[in-house]
Amino acid sequence: MTDNNRPLDVVILAAGQGTRMRSALPKVLHPVAGRPMVAWAVKAAQELGARNVIVVTGHGAGQVEAALKDSGVHFARQDRQLGTGHAFLCGAAALPGDGADILVLYGDTPLLRTETLRALLADHRAGESAFTILTGELPDATGYGRIIRDASGDVERIVEEKAATPQQKAVREFNSGVYLMDGRAPDLARRITNTNAAGEYYLTDLLELYRREGARVRAFRLQDPDEVTGANDRTGLAQAEAILRRRINMAHMRAGVTLQDPDTTRIEDTVTLGRDVTVEPGVILRGETQVADGVTLGAYSVVTDSVLGAGVVVKPHSVLEGARVGEGSDVGPFARLRPGTVLGKDVHVGNFVETKNAHLDEGVKAGHLAYLGDVTVGAETNIGAGTIVANFDGVNKHQTRVGAGVFIGSNSTLIAPRVVGDAAFVAAGSTLHEDVPDGALAVARGKQRTLEGWSRRYWGGMREKVGEKLPWLAGWLERQG
Amino acid sequence: MTDNNRPLDVVILAAGQGTRMRSALPKVLHPVAGRPMVAWAVKAAQELGARNVIVVTGHGAGQVEAALKDSGVHFARQDRQLGTGHAFLCGAAALPGDGADILVLYGDTPLLRTETLRALLADHRAGESAFTILTGELPDATGYGRIIRDASGDVERIVEEKAATPQQKAVREFNSGVYLMDGRAPDLARRITNTNAAGEYYLTDLLELYRREGARVRAFRLQDPDEVTGANDRTGLAQAEAILRRRINMAHMRAGVTLQDPDTTRIEDTVTLGRDVTVEPGVILRGETQVADGVTLGAYSVVTDSVLGAGVVVKPHSVLEGARVGEGSDVGPFARLRPGTVLGKDVHVGNFVETKNAHLDEGVKAGHLAYLGDVTVGAETNIGAGTIVANFDGVNKHQTRVGAGVFIGSNSTLIAPRVVGDAAFVAAGSTLHEDVPDGALAVARGKQRTLEGWSRRYWGGMREKVGEKLPWLAGWLERQG
Amino acid sequence: MTDNNRPLDVVILAAGQGTRMRSALPKVLHPVAGRPMVAWAVKAAQELGARNVIVVTGHGAGQVEAALKDSGVHFARQDRQLGTGHAFLCGAAALPGDGADILVLYGDTPLLRTETLRALLADHRAGESAFTILTGELPDATGYGRIIRDASGDVERIVEEKAATPQQKAVREFNSGVYLMDGRAPDLARRITNTNAAGEYYLTDLLELYRREGARVRAFRLQDPDEVTGANDRTGLAQAEAILRRRINMAHMRAGVTLQDPDTTRIEDTVTLGRDVTVEPGVILRGETQVADGVTLGAYSVVTDSVLGAGVVVKPHSVLEGARVGEGSDVGPFARLRPGTVLGKDVHVGNFVETKNAHLDEGVKAGHLAYLGDVTVGAETNIGAGTIVANFDGVNKHQTRVGAGVFIGSNSTLIAPRVVGDAAFVAAGSTLHEDVPDGALAVARGKQRTLEGWSRRYWGGMREKVGEKLPWLAGWLERQG
Repeated sequence: MTDNNRPLDVVILAAGQGTRMRSALPKVLHPVAGRPMVAWAVKAAQELGARNVIVVTGHGAGQVEAALKDSGVHFARQDRQLGTGHAFLCGAAALPGDGADILVLYGDTPLLRTETLRALLADHRAGESAFTILTGELPDATGYGRIIRDASGDVERIVEEKAATPQQKAVREFNSGVYLMDGRAPDLARRITNTNAAGEYYLTDLLELYRREGARVRAFRLQDPDEVTGANDRTGLAQAEAILRRRINMAHMRAGVTLQDPDTTRIEDTVTLGRDVTVEPGVILRGETQVADGVTLGAYSVVTDSVLGAGVVVKPHSVLEGARVGEGSDVGPFARLRPGTVLGKDVHVGNFVETKNAHLDEGVKAGHLAYLGDVTVGAETNIGAGTIVANFDGVNKHQTRVGAGVFIGSNSTLIAPRVVGDAAFVAAGSTLHEDVPDGALAVARGKQRTLEGWSRRYWGGMREKVGEKLPWLAGWLERQG
Repeated sequence: MTDNNRPLDVVILAAGQGTRMRSALPKVLHPVAGRPMVAWAVKAAQELGARNVIVVTGHGAGQVEAALKDSGVHFARQDRQLGTGHAFLCGAAALPGDGADILVLYGDTPLLRTETLRALLADHRAGESAFTILTGELPDATGYGRIIRDASGDVERIVEEKAATPQQKAVREFNSGVYLMDGRAPDLARRITNTNAAGEYYLTDLLELYRREGARVRAFRLQDPDEVTGANDRTGLAQAEAILRRRINMAHMRAGVTLQDPDTTRIEDTVTLGRDVTVEPGVILRGETQVADGVTLGAYSVVTDSVLGAGVVVKPHSVLEGARVGEGSDVGPFARLRPGTVLGKDVHVGNFVETKNAHLDEGVKAGHLAYLGDVTVGAETNIGAGTIVANFDGVNKHQTRVGAGVFIGSNSTLIAPRVVGDAAFVAAGSTLHEDVPDGALAVARGKQRTLEGWSRRYWGGMREKVGEKLPWLAGWLERQG
Repeated sequence: MTDNNRPLDVVILAAGQGTRMRSALPKVLHPVAGRPMVAWAVKAAQELGARNVIVVTGHGAGQVEAALKDSGVHFARQDRQLGTGHAFLCGAAALPGDGADILVLYGDTPLLRTETLRALLADHRAGESAFTILTGELPDATGYGRIIRDASGDVERIVEEKAATPQQKAVREFNSGVYLMDGRAPDLARRITNTNAAGEYYLTDLLELYRREGARVRAFRLQDPDEVTGANDRTGLAQAEAILRRRINMAHMRAGVTLQDPDTTRIEDTVTLGRDVTVEPGVILRGETQVADGVTLGAYSVVTDSVLGAGVVVKPHSVLEGARVGEGSDVGPFARLRPGTVLGKDVHVGNFVETKNAHLDEGVKAGHLAYLGDVTVGAETNIGAGTIVANFDGVNKHQTRVGAGVFIGSNSTLIAPRVVGDAAFVAAGSTLHEDVPDGALAVARGKQRTLEGWSRRYWGGMREKVGEKLPWLAGWLERQG
């Protein structure tokens, strides 16, 4: 009898060393498309509605557990690596043992889709299977265990490469290692022996144990065998990354996003994009980024954890992190918005401008070569080129407040903490160490002096070098006599 | 009798909605390689020497007509979408009806080459065909109408997928929907009926109507079936873009341009490149850009509507728009040249420098962190790092003129409108609000004062934080007692 | 008898014109993956342990010889291009003629691996071959000379495309043109005639001459036919570049480097990378760059001839050349380190900062918008945003020395030559033209003056334009009455 409400527990095997990664980092923590590989398995398990998710850790257990500490999973340590059967038992020991279905996943198969697992689960339950093997099909399945089905289509056994006859080697259906099992699995798994060449406990042996019980063992075949390809070295990581990137990009394109060059566009799966967003080549979108309708993302921009309002234009070569950009604003090229940046509507942040903890109200313009840190700026204020908010005294950061309708002249320096009132005007080249009242002009620069004839003496003193390097000036010097 | 001088009219069907684009923009306006899709059809028609080009608009007609308003085409509205036969009649109504040949094109096939259409036209006329169908061939033509030829090789009929027998389904030649017809087409098209399942008027029915007249119906087979693939969603757009990009890049490579990584190089078809140009990875060249011989375009640079003289070096990460760069000049990395920038010979514009409406004569150097807006600069002048031309008074932009052989010291500010004479010298850190005569020194900065022992008091006042953050300084403080 | 100690000489044929390159540069000087094509052949010959390497030059001989002048090869001029047989004789004339083996390579096959040549040499000697042809195999070898073997497996002859029977055309093994010959080759080559349609001397004719001597002629088959594909035009260059890039990238990934997108990562073969280095998309690494363990290279960064210590983080869009970066330091985004930059441990160089001949000791911070040229900076010093070291007087560069624990306020200018003592404090906005003693405060800026009510008059004078462009300010003006 099918019981679709039977709970499901998931055991994720993540204890392996992964020597082919040649890394100080445990294999399952290597990131793919912005997430450690094992986190992809956790995500799939949780999306599937798993009651308990047990991650079996071994090599680098501390690091793996630390990386997943906020993910709501439980851990089981496999202190010695005695095979997958042993690893499974380590994990199963952490389960209630109340007859729930148990799904075995792996920490190194980031491409396995939740939808695939959902279909596996439905098939398992509809077919009243005791043990269902997720299988794939390849033109040439060399290296994999082959699936031998009986006359009814159920699985009779799995033949490993080494033991396969030529006829069995021709079988294209292979074992992925992903198993969905009924509640008997932990008890049966205890009967697995290690009387084999490697001296390991193989989880695959469960199949035979189930069949001896007279239980039904079935196979559920994947559409896309890539889903169960493990990433065992860095080339595998790169391939997995490329496949995930394509998958994400296809989904966005189908939903109404223009990707001018999907091959060089890298969007993490946590990012949301509105309709009629245009993404130029080489754009990287990471983390909790949200992009509203009609936004243009300029070539080679890197946007992390940022929220972009409707119609925002990010020009090429901009780097945004933890920023909010109001609708209609434009940013870049070569803009750097750092965490705590909040831009209102129709704000303009231009080239070589950096903002950090900066609130710029509607219509503010900061077009060129500026540093705006720890500052609020009122509506319509114009920040001249070269303006620096000097927010740091060597030890502490201080806050600056600039009003609305202010004009900050070019190359000004505002020494924080500073208040510049509404409609104030700061003369170009000023260094402000006092506050400026509303509507006042502040000037804080030297007086201009002119020394006629000075250049002749200056350049004359190095006439020879001028002659070598500056022919126009040499001629001018000569004309001066 | 062949008449190669018979005029040719073109009807471009561009009324469809394109719901799979999931866009507020009409389908045919989605850009591919820098041009709305429909504009590619218009370009091909015009290059073919069409007398009249009629664009049939429907969904988003106003937008489509606005986008093409300067292109020399005529428009015909198809207010209700009753099928391609109906759309054609809407378009044909705008033609003189003087017996000219009529070519039917589509607004969503940007890959169709003018050379292909030229060959189609030649074949049509040489073969004394009344109705010539542009066809393609695919290993599996599922979904397309199949071309059924008679014993003579002429086309007997087109069988749609749904009506095809297994034998007909095996036919690899398919109907592209592009037709070249003699002057009878509009009259015959009026006889098309909509007595079919969809209740639509199909332009394909013309074939049967022509044959009933005893007219010759032929097929002209494309070399490359990609040319007639319509872009129906964003993945189709991306594919079309990639194919066009490859096509353009191959042509440049064959003509003597080195593309270090053609897969990431995006050159619009309006761009011209000289011999021995080197294009590093990730470069984007747009619009009316002209690049002379021997230019190097650095990685990730984006160049729009700019003219680069022989031997110019654009270093990586530069953004140029509407700029002219004289021969031998070098620009970047991280340079931003905006519209109205004109650089003479051997000019150097370095990192984090922005220019706009700026004329820099031969040999000018502006190497670092500067904003040069609305300014002319004479030959050999050196613009120091951090120089800002303050061209904006809050409402208006003003002009600045800097002579030849001038030295502008670092971190100077020139408040526009300003004139700095030839061979003048501006001391570093000056803010100029008065003009500077030829050969004069201008100094406009504060006098330096020194307060000995000040640091001990300053840091001593926050000794604890210094101890936490600045160990060297904490040690120094201690040594001061 | 095998003599593995017999010396080996190499003749590289590099005299061809390469008209299909459409270039002013001789064909063999076109760079692939950072090295002129001919230099790849030289490198392979030298890695193979060649005693003499003779490069036969012709078209653009002067340029080719100049490009290779420091590579330890000898040159032989082929003044008239009379065929490969003639070219070989030109080269052989420069050899001692002491019976050494002679290997013939080409200047336009940059993909040929040293390991392949090593295997060819071993096979030649083990097989006691007099003349060994490097061959490849292709499904369709159209265009190539086909290898006809005799019953023993030795080579009987090579049939050129034009002379081949249909049966011979079906042969998949082709002649690469790379030959390894015993010391008789120069003498035998003198017997080659030009009594053929082209009137050229073909080196291939040596095969027949060797066989007439009763000598053994063998073939050694390549694994990968790509290795002997010549790059004859720019598309061939791009293909060779892509293959080399993939080859290099695969090797790094297998050794423990994460390449997030190998397709857009370009690493020259002179670069070394440590374990657990992470390379984001679009990174370009050139020249003698050395990257230690655990370094992160941010997207789109370009690093040339630089040394990066363990754990360094290079943020996106940074450009480094000739720089040394100490362990734990972070650089970028948008940083530009130029030659002579030496950063100590834990240094921070942030956005829009340029360094050149700059030594920054441990813990220095230069976070924003600065130019640091010809300067040494002591430990823990903080360089404020907008700081410029004015190192240039119009003709000469001067040196600046900033001590440890110094605080340089924002928008300061240091006019070189300048000395700022340890623990000194420079007030923001100062322009220093005098040295600063240890522990002193330097202030060099104007005094701040405030003019109340000034803005009302200023904006009032252009009230109309304010009304158009600045609605908030217009309202404020109105409120002022």
